[in-house]
Amino acid sequence: MTTPPPRKRVLTGDRPTGPLHIGHLAGSLRNRVALQHEYETFVLLADVQALTDNFENPQKVRDNVLEVALDYLAVGLDPDLSTFVIQSQLPEIAELTVFYLNLVTVSHLRQNPTVKTEIAQKGYGESVPAGFFVYPVSQAADITAFGAHLVPVGEDQLPMIEQTREIVRRFNHLYAPVLVEPQALVGQAARLPGLDGAGKMSKSLNNAIFLSDSADTVARKVRGMYTDPEHLRAEDPGRVEGNPVFAYLEAFDPDRSGLEAMQDHYRRGGLGDVKVKRHLTEVLEATLAPIRERRADFARDMDSVREVVRMGTGRGREVAADTMNAVREAMGLNYF
Amino acid sequence: MTTPPPRKRVLTGDRPTGPLHIGHLAGSLRNRVALQHEYETFVLLADVQALTDNFENPQKVRDNVLEVALDYLAVGLDPDLSTFVIQSQLPEIAELTVFYLNLVTVSHLRQNPTVKTEIAQKGYGESVPAGFFVYPVSQAADITAFGAHLVPVGEDQLPMIEQTREIVRRFNHLYAPVLVEPQALVGQAARLPGLDGAGKMSKSLNNAIFLSDSADTVARKVRGMYTDPEHLRAEDPGRVEGNPVFAYLEAFDPDRSGLEAMQDHYRRGGLGDVKVKRHLTEVLEATLAPIRERRADFARDMDSVREVVRMGTGRGREVAADTMNAVREAMGLNYF
Repeated sequence: MTTPPPRKRVLTGDRPTGPLHIGHLAGSLRNRVALQHEYETFVLLADVQALTDNFENPQKVRDNVLEVALDYLAVGLDPDLSTFVIQSQLPEIAELTVFYLNLVTVSHLRQNPTVKTEIAQKGYGESVPAGFFVYPVSQAADITAFGAHLVPVGEDQLPMIEQTREIVRRFNHLYAPVLVEPQALVGQAARLPGLDGAGKMSKSLNNAIFLSDSADTVARKVRGMYTDPEHLRAEDPGRVEGNPVFAYLEAFDPDRSGLEAMQDHYRRGGLGDVKVKRHLTEVLEATLAPIRERRADFARDMDSVREVVRMGTGRGREVAADTMNAVREAMGLNYF
Repeated sequence: MTTPPPRKRVLTGDRPTGPLHIGHLAGSLRNRVALQHEYETFVLLADVQALTDNFENPQKVRDNVLEVALDYLAVGLDPDLSTFVIQSQLPEIAELTVFYLNLVTVSHLRQNPTVKTEIAQKGYGESVPAGFFVYPVSQAADITAFGAHLVPVGEDQLPMIEQTREIVRRFNHLYAPVLVEPQALVGQAARLPGLDGAGKMSKSLNNAIFLSDSADTVARKVRGMYTDPEHLRAEDPGRVEGNPVFAYLEAFDPDRSGLEAMQDHYRRGGLGDVKVKRHLTEVLEATLAPIRERRADFARDMDSVREVVRMGTGRGREVAADTMNAVREAMGLNYF
């Protein structure tokens, strides 16, 4: 008998600032559900990172930790395959953050494209909180604490992974080669636009369909969606590009040839928005109904959800403690 | 019978980057030895902070942790009155640092006068390591982890304590009033110049008399000291101000009227440097001989020194864990 080689590790996660929506489903959750069968998966409920720009509202973060865990279970993340971990319960992540801060300069952080964009979007300017400013370093701590080999990300997150890789190389060179240098696993998943067609889907922009929305709410939200503003009568030709209704169909309609025919019809005219939206409602309902049902089932037994998270956090802490022991030894900080 | 009210807490400490010298003795150690009888004293062996500008040389930091502990015992810090704590062994300090980073902006840190000066002195410019840049926040974590009411500092460290007070007020206002707002205890202790009369005494400038120096080494170092460069012959008038030999006598000579007479004599001429230095050697020897003897005694039993530090670190961790529990509860991060 031979033991199989240990599986590679994946780290994913979310900032628990609100319930998850179909943008998360298309952008990452479906991918994670598939990955968990191939990789040892850790899913981080990143409450500490959520606090970097929600530190004035910790209750929001706290309240959403279990909601997001419910969403995970509902979409099919399986606690036997995926380990759910609450970030704030792992002091090792904070310890690694503090050590890694020595390995990055202020000017280098300032040049990080992702942080730069986000600082501009949030209008922080020079008054950016230091915690937010250094969050790429905290992310390096998250990833390396679990010894993750792969991190599924969108294109826009590549600079964050590169920052982690730089820190790992610097650490391994300075002290001892104990950290795993992770790789980005860039998905082709599209970023869903909001219901209003403006920007990405997000709770704070109030333009999202949540996994926890009822069938009625989904139908109502779809009816109110932005489409092609020039497509005034059904007989007019309509635009498919930039039309969020078609973006959602692209993401969720399993009938690809049917969708293609519908796009053609819409483009040449004669297909009204009401009909397309009715189809989208059906498509979303086919995806969301089983998720909603599982979510309701789990929600009836919150104690077991809490237990899943507690067990996962315990398991995550073991892994992080192993990393931290290796880091302490590499740095010579093991005194006793 | 009534229980006495709990004593106020003091936090002091050093960055273990080299053995302690008579500058430390005059500037802080003597004061601490006195304070430990009045206050519950925690003394931090600040290895994590030492790493912020020694991260490329962790061995130096590691090697000096027990050396500094020996120095503490030698000068009379009593483990029954003062708790010696190794900073890196308290993950709570890193956790507090991460949370406090949210409460301070990058531009505010940039304006901290102490950090500004040190960044200039070290020639970092924009390439200052982020860990060094944020160290006032780590200091706030040190101080508050122990719930210290008082922090003995020099005038130049006042901005650091003010930064801690700001963080405490912000935290207590945002979450719940669980942190102690510390006060600076500004001593009148002078900062000793180096043997070369240039700048302050420091190991890196190679201009220090160490507590662990032998009597011969002390005598040799004093003989080589810079004095008044215009005072070429014994009969010439000499300058006392800016003369490090007199600065050391000012700090250590218990015979104040004798010292005054000697200063007068030196000023008006007729007192040679050799004589003054011989007197300084005697004065220093009177101070250092018992310290050196105690140091040698403790050094013969390093296991018990290690045990003092291990016990102290354990006690420090209990106090920090209490703080951290209160902080978690205040922020709502107590999930289980």
